[in-house]
Amino acid sequence: MPEQDETAPSSQHTKALEPIRGRRRDRRRDRNDPSAGGEEIPLTPFGGLRNHLGYLTPLQEDQIDQIHKNSMKILKDFGIKVLSQEVRDHLKSLGCLVDDDTMMVRADEDFIMAHIATAPAEFSLTPRNPDRKLTFGGNHVNFGLVSGPPNVSDRVRGRRPSQYQDFKDLICLGQSLHHIHCYGNQTAATNDLNVHTRHLDSMLTTLICSDKVTSCMSVGRERVTDAVHMVAIARGLSLETMADTPGAMTNINVNSPRVLDVEMSDAALAMAEMGQAVIVTPFTLMGAMAPVSLPAALAQQNAEALFVIALIQSWRPGTPVIYGGFTSNVDMKTGAPAFGTPENTLTNLATGQLCRRYRLPYRSSGCSASNVPDAQAAYETQMSLWGAIFGGANLIYHSAGWMEGGLVASYEKVMLDGDMLEGFAKMLAPIDFAPAEFAMDAIGEVEPGGHFFGHAHTLERYKSAFFAPMLSDWQNFENWQANGSLSAYDRAEEKWKTALKTFTPPQIDPSISEALSDYVTRRKAEIGNRPL
Amino acid sequence: MPEQDETAPSSQHTKALEPIRGRRRDRRRDRNDPSAGGEEIPLTPFGGLRNHLGYLTPLQEDQIDQIHKNSMKILKDFGIKVLSQEVRDHLKSLGCLVDDDTMMVRADEDFIMAHIATAPAEFSLTPRNPDRKLTFGGNHVNFGLVSGPPNVSDRVRGRRPSQYQDFKDLICLGQSLHHIHCYGNQTAATNDLNVHTRHLDSMLTTLICSDKVTSCMSVGRERVTDAVHMVAIARGLSLETMADTPGAMTNINVNSPRVLDVEMSDAALAMAEMGQAVIVTPFTLMGAMAPVSLPAALAQQNAEALFVIALIQSWRPGTPVIYGGFTSNVDMKTGAPAFGTPENTLTNLATGQLCRRYRLPYRSSGCSASNVPDAQAAYETQMSLWGAIFGGANLIYHSAGWMEGGLVASYEKVMLDGDMLEGFAKMLAPIDFAPAEFAMDAIGEVEPGGHFFGHAHTLERYKSAFFAPMLSDWQNFENWQANGSLSAYDRAEEKWKTALKTFTPPQIDPSISEALSDYVTRRKAEIGNRPL
Repeated sequence: MPEQDETAPSSQHTKALEPIRGRRRDRRRDRNDPSAGGEEIPLTPFGGLRNHLGYLTPLQEDQIDQIHKNSMKILKDFGIKVLSQEVRDHLKSLGCLVDDDTMMVRADEDFIMAHIATAPAEFSLTPRNPDRKLTFGGNHVNFGLVSGPPNVSDRVRGRRPSQYQDFKDLICLGQSLHHIHCYGNQTAATNDLNVHTRHLDSMLTTLICSDKVTSCMSVGRERVTDAVHMVAIARGLSLETMADTPGAMTNINVNSPRVLDVEMSDAALAMAEMGQAVIVTPFTLMGAMAPVSLPAALAQQNAEALFVIALIQSWRPGTPVIYGGFTSNVDMKTGAPAFGTPENTLTNLATGQLCRRYRLPYRSSGCSASNVPDAQAAYETQMSLWGAIFGGANLIYHSAGWMEGGLVASYEKVMLDGDMLEGFAKMLAPIDFAPAEFAMDAIGEVEPGGHFFGHAHTLERYKSAFFAPMLSDWQNFENWQANGSLSAYDRAEEKWKTALKTFTPPQIDPSISEALSDYVTRRKAEIGNRPL
Repeated sequence: MPEQDETAPSSQHTKALEPIRGRRRDRRRDRNDPSAGGEEIPLTPFGGLRNHLGYLTPLQEDQIDQIHKNSMKILKDFGIKVLSQEVRDHLKSLGCLVDDDTMMVRADEDFIMAHIATAPAEFSLTPRNPDRKLTFGGNHVNFGLVSGPPNVSDRVRGRRPSQYQDFKDLICLGQSLHHIHCYGNQTAATNDLNVHTRHLDSMLTTLICSDKVTSCMSVGRERVTDAVHMVAIARGLSLETMADTPGAMTNINVNSPRVLDVEMSDAALAMAEMGQAVIVTPFTLMGAMAPVSLPAALAQQNAEALFVIALIQSWRPGTPVIYGGFTSNVDMKTGAPAFGTPENTLTNLATGQLCRRYRLPYRSSGCSASNVPDAQAAYETQMSLWGAIFGGANLIYHSAGWMEGGLVASYEKVMLDGDMLEGFAKMLAPIDFAPAEFAMDAIGEVEPGGHFFGHAHTLERYKSAFFAPMLSDWQNFENWQANGSLSAYDRAEEKWKTALKTFTPPQIDPSISEALSDYVTRRKAEIGNRPL
């Protein structure tokens, strides 16, 4: 008699499955390695993920109201420090209260609500491969790769300031991962390139090595303009035509508390003029750049995000915008930022409630403060991803590879998280409820205490019945040990190496890649070889 | 200008926090080590967790109906193989169709629905410490420790068949973890004890080393009866009185597909006679003991669970019961069981929808198939826990320490998961929305671009503002490296060692512990020293 609760006799199952096992190969290896041959295992389609499972809602309706009211009060009574004279002049002309000495701008609720109302509740971005088009808003869910770290790490070369080659490697890994749908402003900093022209090199690499939606570095007008030009070239469109079918985005941060700097507002307004998408993300770490209490931090985040979204809409109504929520907390012991905490997860959920109130698409993030891709990295990333997905985020930035609170892009973590995202994608996929899926014949035919391994109902479905992860190891302990006792970290190292070794860039028309190169050459000459 | 997206300058924060840092100590060390002194950091209270965030619902209403109808059809057309003659006779007397040759019992929907209707939608279990009382049903959430593995592992002694000392260590770790609320049938097998009397040793150890709700080994009548006797002694109650305020539970499994064995039904019915709680858990691994398709597996699980719950209710109406969902899938490549998969998570969510339809308390599980407490172990456990919590499970079995698909209880994983559960508890705790929590003064007073570290609003709240994890390491990379580059696995090893070293059993009246010992001595004499 079994004294164990639900301990599966795996050896018995292994034996029972012999007839099936002989027929197939490692599914995911086939996918990464074109030379491997074998049967193709169907994946969920690229993109198109929708959350049909509902939302988790920590806030009650009256609490959403309170957050709204307090955020409006922050904007009316305290205001935002706007460093750009041009933006202050613009807002003054629209009736905002502007003090040019302190650079403070105050706006009232009518101004904010009137302008955010012109933002589209849903919009799409189309990259050079139209099959990779993404939709933001509603219950759409899109995953973006790690963005922004000044360092990278992998187990071969350790932790180091990131270089152009790392930037490129990460683009290739993102392209190879099925449920990485898009890129943020940059996969990692290109510290070895000329600061004035590296945005050109980065975008060229991105457009050659990937056909997915990407973002522009949000540092002033010049860089985003170059980036949007290049996306237009890659799509074979003029800048004017692309304004009607946007294909690029940028993320700008509010320098919380309550500062909008020139580079950020310039980038945002240039994107708006070109009809491209802007994500507005206050960086509100509770206890540091925002109060320690969650209602206050959300009110501050809401004030900052809505102010900038209203500014963008007042500049060019209808500009596609996304409300970015990035409220986590610091460790009050050391001041170190923490992510994937219960507080971070709650704000990811709560921010979705705010975005739905304003009918604005929502950006959230997958995050971890761990220094190594271990259990902590996984549980923090899971916590933030669940908060993001079931908070209703339409764009989940930093979904894979973001480590050390954003100081590092980890090659291994890209693969670990990328596999988790595949799992989420499978979880979000519709469940087939056709009558045959109730398997009533099989249930009647398999004797009590028997098993379903060899039944026709199983054999017809076993290939695609379940999620086939790239990284999870489900061998029994003895086999796992005999095969080298590889941890998830070990396996992730193997996976990125294989992915880079077997990487094939997506097809591109030679005339387009030439045009992109020409653009970069011309612009580099214009910008000149300013010193680093 | 920052080119990074949301990369926190942690050194700046560290500096800014100097005034606070000097004042306090490691919060969790204080908790584990009574000699450490220092300020006490308030934890969320023991138990009492409720899910106010809502449910995730993969099934539409008509799909729930379809699952219900198919499960009723399974019971009416195919039936359950009931190995106990006594149970078959009982069910025959109530009008079920019984074939004694094949041992098959068929029941119709009227029978099932009439009997499950007498099950309480909510009930409580009271252990020897009434402050540790737990409620099951509604939106209550309770976490149980790993239950059942035949092996244990830790980094010092490796993986090995579990012994009595391991059983006891795990009881002590469970007692020391704040948000482990109860135990399953046994923390790990006591392979070195006499098989006929080890249930007495186990229960004695549990009742001495812990004051939390525990379970009885579900192997026949004798063992659960002994266990319930002992819980009654520990509470200073008679068996008769305890029937009115239940204090023990057991988990029984249906041997899926469609077999109810004698030991399980005997244990369940003995518990019912004593008014104690029974969890009924079909073990339905899709592709092995259930069909590969999710609707079919859920219908089979539902048929099996409702059949046994109806049996128990027909035996003693009003018996506290819990519907156990344990539907995951096997790896179709090897037949190995897999847990924390997207399919497992979906069934955790969907089973909650079924339980709410029947107004039955719901048991789910935290699970992983990993062979080591690495990133895989963490993400699989997170996936299953999120599915369980936001599926609406009232009892989450195996919440901490369950590894290798239940073949191993891991000391390190107990601590890792225990810390994750604290995080979930914090996430489920109500958010304070008092006006002061909006911190409007602080927001107005902290200058734009400034920080909130030193503000009075922060200083008044910093101690308890955020979740203070036991295991997560948020040091910056340089400090983390200087302190030995410890992974979460390394830190978990330290934590269980400290927890066991500093463990103090909860107070117990000497007369009660003596009475428990006497009971064990007497029963061992009665059972006799049968060979192992």
